[in-house]
Amino acid sequence: MSRRITLLTDFGTRDGYVAAMKAVLARLAPGVLLDDASHDLAHGDVRGGMWALNRYWRLYPRGTVHLVVVDPGVGTERRPLALEADGRYVVAPDNGVASFVVASAGHCRIREIRHVDPPLPGDPSTTFHGRDLFAPAAGFLAAGGALDRLGPAVDDPLVLEGPHPYRERDQAVGEVVRVDRFGNLITNLPGEWAEAYGMAEIEGRSIPFVTAYGFGDPGSPLAVVNSDRLVEVAVRDGSAADVLRAGVGTPVRLVR
Amino acid sequence: MSRRITLLTDFGTRDGYVAAMKAVLARLAPGVLLDDASHDLAHGDVRGGMWALNRYWRLYPRGTVHLVVVDPGVGTERRPLALEADGRYVVAPDNGVASFVVASAGHCRIREIRHVDPPLPGDPSTTFHGRDLFAPAAGFLAAGGALDRLGPAVDDPLVLEGPHPYRERDQAVGEVVRVDRFGNLITNLPGEWAEAYGMAEIEGRSIPFVTAYGFGDPGSPLAVVNSDRLVEVAVRDGSAADVLRAGVGTPVRLVR
Amino acid sequence: MSRRITLLTDFGTRDGYVAAMKAVLARLAPGVLLDDASHDLAHGDVRGGMWALNRYWRLYPRGTVHLVVVDPGVGTERRPLALEADGRYVVAPDNGVASFVVASAGHCRIREIRHVDPPLPGDPSTTFHGRDLFAPAAGFLAAGGALDRLGPAVDDPLVLEGPHPYRERDQAVGEVVRVDRFGNLITNLPGEWAEAYGMAEIEGRSIPFVTAYGFGDPGSPLAVVNSDRLVEVAVRDGSAADVLRAGVGTPVRLVR
Repeated sequence: MSRRITLLTDFGTRDGYVAAMKAVLARLAPGVLLDDASHDLAHGDVRGGMWALNRYWRLYPRGTVHLVVVDPGVGTERRPLALEADGRYVVAPDNGVASFVVASAGHCRIREIRHVDPPLPGDPSTTFHGRDLFAPAAGFLAAGGALDRLGPAVDDPLVLEGPHPYRERDQAVGEVVRVDRFGNLITNLPGEWAEAYGMAEIEGRSIPFVTAYGFGDPGSPLAVVNSDRLVEVAVRDGSAADVLRAGVGTPVRLVR
Repeated sequence: MSRRITLLTDFGTRDGYVAAMKAVLARLAPGVLLDDASHDLAHGDVRGGMWALNRYWRLYPRGTVHLVVVDPGVGTERRPLALEADGRYVVAPDNGVASFVVASAGHCRIREIRHVDPPLPGDPSTTFHGRDLFAPAAGFLAAGGALDRLGPAVDDPLVLEGPHPYRERDQAVGEVVRVDRFGNLITNLPGEWAEAYGMAEIEGRSIPFVTAYGFGDPGSPLAVVNSDRLVEVAVRDGSAADVLRAGVGTPVRLVR
Repeated sequence: MSRRITLLTDFGTRDGYVAAMKAVLARLAPGVLLDDASHDLAHGDVRGGMWALNRYWRLYPRGTVHLVVVDPGVGTERRPLALEADGRYVVAPDNGVASFVVASAGHCRIREIRHVDPPLPGDPSTTFHGRDLFAPAAGFLAAGGALDRLGPAVDDPLVLEGPHPYRERDQAVGEVVRVDRFGNLITNLPGEWAEAYGMAEIEGRSIPFVTAYGFGDPGSPLAVVNSDRLVEVAVRDGSAADVLRAGVGTPVRLVR
């Protein structure tokens, strides 16, 4: 059986740090298939990793191991975690990067990584846990190792809370929670709310809903229910973030 | 047998959109080998995708599936296509990104994608056809599915015409059609024409042909017949685009 | 058995050059697993490739083929090399990019690539040896071909010498040899020297050693023994290169 491991980091690739992790994975789980999710997260962008991971973790087949190393606290007391959620595995630091996984999985077991058989000669480093701690745990799981052998159970992982949208009288109130590389403004407003209103309001502008990016006028903002079932404000062939001068935290309303 | 799928998009990787597509592919074609071609195309750069795809589609073994999602018209009436060309498959929007494949294949069958078994719960989105339409079709083909089952035959795919070079009296006239990441100026002048002339002329400068980049003087422009058998103007250890202030559309002549 | 080939280039991905190399590898070694190390090296950055390769070449399992194409001298007299070092293979131009491999391997055999069976119709190009020379050699090795069949033995590969650190009286003297994408300043000072001193000195500032990045004060420089067992100066949640205005060649001292 071909196991897969996905890799998500903020390392970039040019220094060889990611390749060092891949080497450890290939050594511990020979024949494993390695899929790069991304290595272009901004340095230390835990929330960015959280959003990215949320887009793919459950779409992968059961048995997949998702390795996530966005780890500004490397070498400190933050716990390294390995968890199993709905049949997929996630190996990541306990800094909230797996918040959506923990919050949305129907079934989730979490362990602190304590007992990985060291794959490298010498002691693990204190600066590169991706290679010396997280990759070994991911390789161990991909090779069929039992989650429970990695360490003690954890029942209080750090879960980042997002701002919560709400409805009042004639409107729904939310905000931009993410800007993607296209400049699309992703909000925390559930897509199913959109139907009851009909317009989005942001930075003083009223923006109509359309069914797809391609139906907007080039250069003009449009609102859609996106592929994550969230309200999103976009500009056809352009960047809504630039056109509207909006970003994470900008208020967005749904109005009639 | 290990099938391969290559991926070419303008998505970047940091938002997790590419990983969502990989997840669908891994689910539909377990064990498939996923090769990233690129996710760094400029947003909506259909011609860039066309040039990149042209460099590798036919070098891959028969049976390979090339998934290309550069799709400014997502959600509109543009047709999603799947085609088989000389034993390789291409899955892409009908916007010309596969023009070179269609134009150069000895044998080509094209189908509109209509009947992909949905791999995801719920309806396909209108904003993310990469995940909900193109990846499912590519996974279906990689798993051995029959092209003809995807939808009706198409005999009028969009094929982008490039500018055509020509010869007159003592010269050949073409133009720059692509600038690569090194700043090399790739022209539409066939390499086999170069021998009859001997110099390239661009922006008022006469540029000698050499047999390899390394034989030019550092900082000075040189002309070569490149690995696609096209005339190319380059600068050793530098960018010809910068040095010559040239870009796509800049006229280039071959002279004696 | 699943062989692996890693790829390290300065090509970027958007032009399709890397995908063309992958196509050749997939054709010559069907089923081979392709791991991207990086394609984001700066154009012609041989030393950057040397540092990156050093981080992973020996961590990969025996039998892995490391393909490295950072090749400012493409098409000139520089020799294309294939070598076997401690059971791993490296295919690269003879420009020093494999210096650390040659210098640190316990056992190393080196061949000049002369006789690769051409996988492509037509003559090899003079501009794209990655596709026409190095990838064919790597695919040949990954498919189980014998190193010695590639060409004659080489006993004088180019090995780049780094600046050598030294100790005098109360201090050790070295310099920054690499800046990674986080702005960390990697020096040539061996980690085992650190203990005898206690402070690092750079650009007139005294910098304390800590055991991990996370123990520094945000914004303030700190020194660590990094995962390559070298002294490194970093700034927590920031860039030491920016904060200290330092770069490759900046002197660094260890003092008491």
